[in-house]
Amino acid sequence: MLSFVCDYSEGAHPRILERLAETNLVPQPGYGSDEYTLSARGKIARACACPKADVYFLAGGTQTNQTVISSLLHSWQGVVAAETGHIAVHEAGAIEYSGHKVLTVPGHDGKVCADEVKALLKGFFEDANHEHMVFPGMVYISFPTEYGTIYSRAELQALHELCRSYDIPLFLDGARLAYGLAAEGCDLTMPDIASLADVFYIGGTKVGALCGEAVVFPRGNAPEHFLTQIKQRGALLAKGRLNGIQFETLFTDGLYFSLGRHAVEMAVQLRKVLHENGCHFFLESPTNQQFIILEDSVMERLSREVAFDFWEKQDDTHTIVRFATSWATRPEDISTLAGILHKL
Amino acid sequence: MLSFVCDYSEGAHPRILERLAETNLVPQPGYGSDEYTLSARGKIARACACPKADVYFLAGGTQTNQTVISSLLHSWQGVVAAETGHIAVHEAGAIEYSGHKVLTVPGHDGKVCADEVKALLKGFFEDANHEHMVFPGMVYISFPTEYGTIYSRAELQALHELCRSYDIPLFLDGARLAYGLAAEGCDLTMPDIASLADVFYIGGTKVGALCGEAVVFPRGNAPEHFLTQIKQRGALLAKGRLNGIQFETLFTDGLYFSLGRHAVEMAVQLRKVLHENGCHFFLESPTNQQFIILEDSVMERLSREVAFDFWEKQDDTHTIVRFATSWATRPEDISTLAGILHKL
Amino acid sequence: MLSFVCDYSEGAHPRILERLAETNLVPQPGYGSDEYTLSARGKIARACACPKADVYFLAGGTQTNQTVISSLLHSWQGVVAAETGHIAVHEAGAIEYSGHKVLTVPGHDGKVCADEVKALLKGFFEDANHEHMVFPGMVYISFPTEYGTIYSRAELQALHELCRSYDIPLFLDGARLAYGLAAEGCDLTMPDIASLADVFYIGGTKVGALCGEAVVFPRGNAPEHFLTQIKQRGALLAKGRLNGIQFETLFTDGLYFSLGRHAVEMAVQLRKVLHENGCHFFLESPTNQQFIILEDSVMERLSREVAFDFWEKQDDTHTIVRFATSWATRPEDISTLAGILHKL
Amino acid sequence: MLSFVCDYSEGAHPRILERLAETNLVPQPGYGSDEYTLSARGKIARACACPKADVYFLAGGTQTNQTVISSLLHSWQGVVAAETGHIAVHEAGAIEYSGHKVLTVPGHDGKVCADEVKALLKGFFEDANHEHMVFPGMVYISFPTEYGTIYSRAELQALHELCRSYDIPLFLDGARLAYGLAAEGCDLTMPDIASLADVFYIGGTKVGALCGEAVVFPRGNAPEHFLTQIKQRGALLAKGRLNGIQFETLFTDGLYFSLGRHAVEMAVQLRKVLHENGCHFFLESPTNQQFIILEDSVMERLSREVAFDFWEKQDDTHTIVRFATSWATRPEDISTLAGILHKL
Repeated sequence: MLSFVCDYSEGAHPRILERLAETNLVPQPGYGSDEYTLSARGKIARACACPKADVYFLAGGTQTNQTVISSLLHSWQGVVAAETGHIAVHEAGAIEYSGHKVLTVPGHDGKVCADEVKALLKGFFEDANHEHMVFPGMVYISFPTEYGTIYSRAELQALHELCRSYDIPLFLDGARLAYGLAAEGCDLTMPDIASLADVFYIGGTKVGALCGEAVVFPRGNAPEHFLTQIKQRGALLAKGRLNGIQFETLFTDGLYFSLGRHAVEMAVQLRKVLHENGCHFFLESPTNQQFIILEDSVMERLSREVAFDFWEKQDDTHTIVRFATSWATRPEDISTLAGILHKL
Repeated sequence: MLSFVCDYSEGAHPRILERLAETNLVPQPGYGSDEYTLSARGKIARACACPKADVYFLAGGTQTNQTVISSLLHSWQGVVAAETGHIAVHEAGAIEYSGHKVLTVPGHDGKVCADEVKALLKGFFEDANHEHMVFPGMVYISFPTEYGTIYSRAELQALHELCRSYDIPLFLDGARLAYGLAAEGCDLTMPDIASLADVFYIGGTKVGALCGEAVVFPRGNAPEHFLTQIKQRGALLAKGRLNGIQFETLFTDGLYFSLGRHAVEMAVQLRKVLHENGCHFFLESPTNQQFIILEDSVMERLSREVAFDFWEKQDDTHTIVRFATSWATRPEDISTLAGILHKL
Repeated sequence: MLSFVCDYSEGAHPRILERLAETNLVPQPGYGSDEYTLSARGKIARACACPKADVYFLAGGTQTNQTVISSLLHSWQGVVAAETGHIAVHEAGAIEYSGHKVLTVPGHDGKVCADEVKALLKGFFEDANHEHMVFPGMVYISFPTEYGTIYSRAELQALHELCRSYDIPLFLDGARLAYGLAAEGCDLTMPDIASLADVFYIGGTKVGALCGEAVVFPRGNAPEHFLTQIKQRGALLAKGRLNGIQFETLFTDGLYFSLGRHAVEMAVQLRKVLHENGCHFFLESPTNQQFIILEDSVMERLSREVAFDFWEKQDDTHTIVRFATSWATRPEDISTLAGILHKL
Repeated sequence: MLSFVCDYSEGAHPRILERLAETNLVPQPGYGSDEYTLSARGKIARACACPKADVYFLAGGTQTNQTVISSLLHSWQGVVAAETGHIAVHEAGAIEYSGHKVLTVPGHDGKVCADEVKALLKGFFEDANHEHMVFPGMVYISFPTEYGTIYSRAELQALHELCRSYDIPLFLDGARLAYGLAAEGCDLTMPDIASLADVFYIGGTKVGALCGEAVVFPRGNAPEHFLTQIKQRGALLAKGRLNGIQFETLFTDGLYFSLGRHAVEMAVQLRKVLHENGCHFFLESPTNQQFIILEDSVMERLSREVAFDFWEKQDDTHTIVRFATSWATRPEDISTLAGILHKL
């Protein structure tokens, strides 16, 4: 069935499968010391314009968030996030499982506001009276957010300066980074991200890889014994080559960025089709996720011909649903959808 | 270079790559609800002769051990293992990170002895005096062990009965299960394992998959909300299809078992070659791992032409090294090694 | 200086010190198996009208909350609490340190509302779609709350029934239980609390003991190996007699309840004095804590003659402060305060 | 009944009770900012000859070990201890509960040997090959040990230098410190302990206090936000005065040291009586704990008239038992025991 459910419905970009096949029988050392991983690290460091970057590969997003956050925080610290942030809601308590509280601030279409974060930090760092509370030890943002929105350069700069002034790291979850960088109106590049975040990850799972996220510490600022910490959290693949080969491919000839552009182009067409068919938007994002409000009986009929994602109930008779494009969306998928919507 | 370093040096068995390519663009739901995962579950349940089995797929061994052990133990319980067990030594404290002690018993060529385990359990369950100690809540064994040795049916039966009598689960780490089942003298089958263990995993990473381990709860005895617990520990792949496709392939036409037999046949030839060239064995195992003792200068010369694994120092002038065969070892690798050894 | 800072400013009720002295040199076994602890358990069970109650003594409130909550929850569960609840704000992340999320609902003068809790629970227990979220596994309330307010019998009954219907425990934090039971308008007794909560603790530290909280599992429903779990969390006193003697004294001749009544009588007079002197109340509670709003210059002058607790800034020129009475407040303290306020 | 069960059978030294009564109604701020705690800190710093010492008070030994160890270690580190160390055996897994492995070395009558510790450390710090293992991040010793033995100055110096050379802290558990310092042949003073350990605690519970242990960071080297970390682990008493008053008393006029000397004098007499009555010693210690081997029928008869501690079975017909003196042992208790033994 035609599917706009999410951006991880298909396997991998064909070049990744080709490269896995080409390299398949070359013996390599394990745990990320293989030549493909080394090469991928170099390519990513160059794409970030950070020659000193430490780059590590993990298998998935929750694992990456858990490992990065728990290895950077002291036990008495928590992580600040939007109340709609992935780590606050949809990771089954992975951060708390590692012993840390998620300190929430309001989410504005998924984004945190530097002023509201500052108000929270200020209390801890400037008053004496917080010894019985969890100290904010890091700020977590997602780019794009869970709602497909993106931070402007000015917004990210403000968060960067705020974190700098309180000497805590800014962590950017880039599960869908390529889709954010390719967004209409995005005024940030990969090197900008690398210079404004203290640690971030480049998502592979949602951008054409079978699995894999690349954690970047742009200034060589990985925590001590980070490999051991990855292992301890169960997140170290024996065949590190699997991640290495995938990211080496994604960062050869700009594939990662072109996959991002493709998904956003498809999303532009998707929005056009949704508008033309009179859909009400809950949130129209500049990236690959679009949130629309459907009357329940319409939703039911539509769901017989096209797959999309239930988001949440709007009211008794309406539902918010998500349509996502991806690296794998084809122009003809959009036209097929247009036909279906038109019929309804 | 010729390599006998380990059984995870290469990529995947070619049929797995083919199957990944064939299915690549079929959209599927995430998190293990795809059709390949469903099919793989069924095939594994049949291979275990356990129609009610719960089967889950995780990405790697440490992650699997951590998730299974921490989800089955109560907070006041620890896991009993050989002092040489993988969880006791080489997982960077992943079990303790999840809050549980590893209670060790002596390892006999990697195996635990039911009588010694019983002596430990007996104290806790029959005396009153252990309230200030960590209670044994599970027995962990590896099959084959970290030394390539295997349990006989009688030995496994004894451990099964012991665990049953104290009402604690027996967990079998089958990272290299195929190599154990194919071993010379092995009197156990997959259904035997499934009937004697309360939970076990079928290793993919070391037996021809890019990644992936299949956890089997043979009697439908998975812990409540196990999927959520996997997610919470960062171990749930978004593209569950990656594991599903690999295990579906491994359990089609008996591929998993034939890979096991191949590695063991290669190991038989390897042992022969090592013997013929006068090598001293530290431990000669019936599976794919062989441990020999090399004089250090010999080791140094040998290492210029063939890769193997440093195990530990034997004394000031000798070192124990490991040679491993795998699903990917070719007969000509053994002859090449024979030539190299002969020269030395 | 005259002090209304809190209810743990002084040492212990004199009868407790006398009893410590009387029993001082009688040798007793450790870890809570002494005769005083046994006697205290019996007296508390009787005061709760729960002959089968399991009663355990811990040293402090945070420790008790951490131990009870973490030993009752499964790893995939969190605890529901008011966003102003002590465990959510002022315990330095002790619950998250034990691996669990605090799931917050709005606080209404410190209280949770059964309907809002139900709305949260309903989603988890009646929809399928929450596998990536932390499941609510317990409801936590404080009685009286952090704002001195109390639940009515009807409100507690509603929470009891809600928890029963979803089969999760209701945990009542009674750090100041005596002050709640003695409150004007309280329509609940200790046996009522015991029949409506699944587990609760009777606070000693804030009601005349040097330290100590009594955890009650009214229906003999303590978790398995609870003593070992207390030990594991560092919360088991070697000289269990210290807690035993204190609680035995508090539950002899109704001392605990009369200390509660005394503090509330003092609070009634305190409120009268505050009203007579034109103080604005932020929250006027029926128990021993009163929250008033002071103009900052008044606050500054007042603080030279009487100690009270800073609560939070109301606006740029006003501050909310707390005045607390306790078992140790003397009628003359109130008159002295009246004189001081009158002068201002 | 006459009791030599342990050193925490009675309440508190009478001067402590007197001082609790004297100060009882003086209002004080909570959580260790009271004047008695401040005074106790100063007295302890002086007794240690460490004017810059950070001193914190916790309620019990397991709690103290758990808090100190988990706040000093990084997540990827474990603590080295004797296999008979309290944290390795008798604290219900409190260290593992906080996420860290206890790395054991052989115990020699309870003591670790610097050479054996060095052999363990050397591997981690000088070889490259330990990334999949738990790194040793601290050395834990008890003084006196669980067997009543003590380290000589030379032995402690060796451990100090070893830890210094690998830049990891040496933690000394002084639950019974007074009894060690007063031991025959002890060539160490409190200032020596303070200069050779990086952190240690002075036990109160077993030396005349109702509860309480004083953690000393001799060079002002407490971890950041240590108070918050104590709170987070549930170990912060609201009435910090309870610990403050007790330790202020113990460190006034050398009471702590004289209690130590008294117990050791009683132990000298105890040993004499045991010898005179032909008892076989399992371990004759220079401190307050003596371990003897009793034929089971003798043990049974003896236990009707005097209480002692079961240690472990020696063989089918003999048992090792412990007799402990303490600050509360009276000379007549020894004579009474002599009479009882003589009759047998």
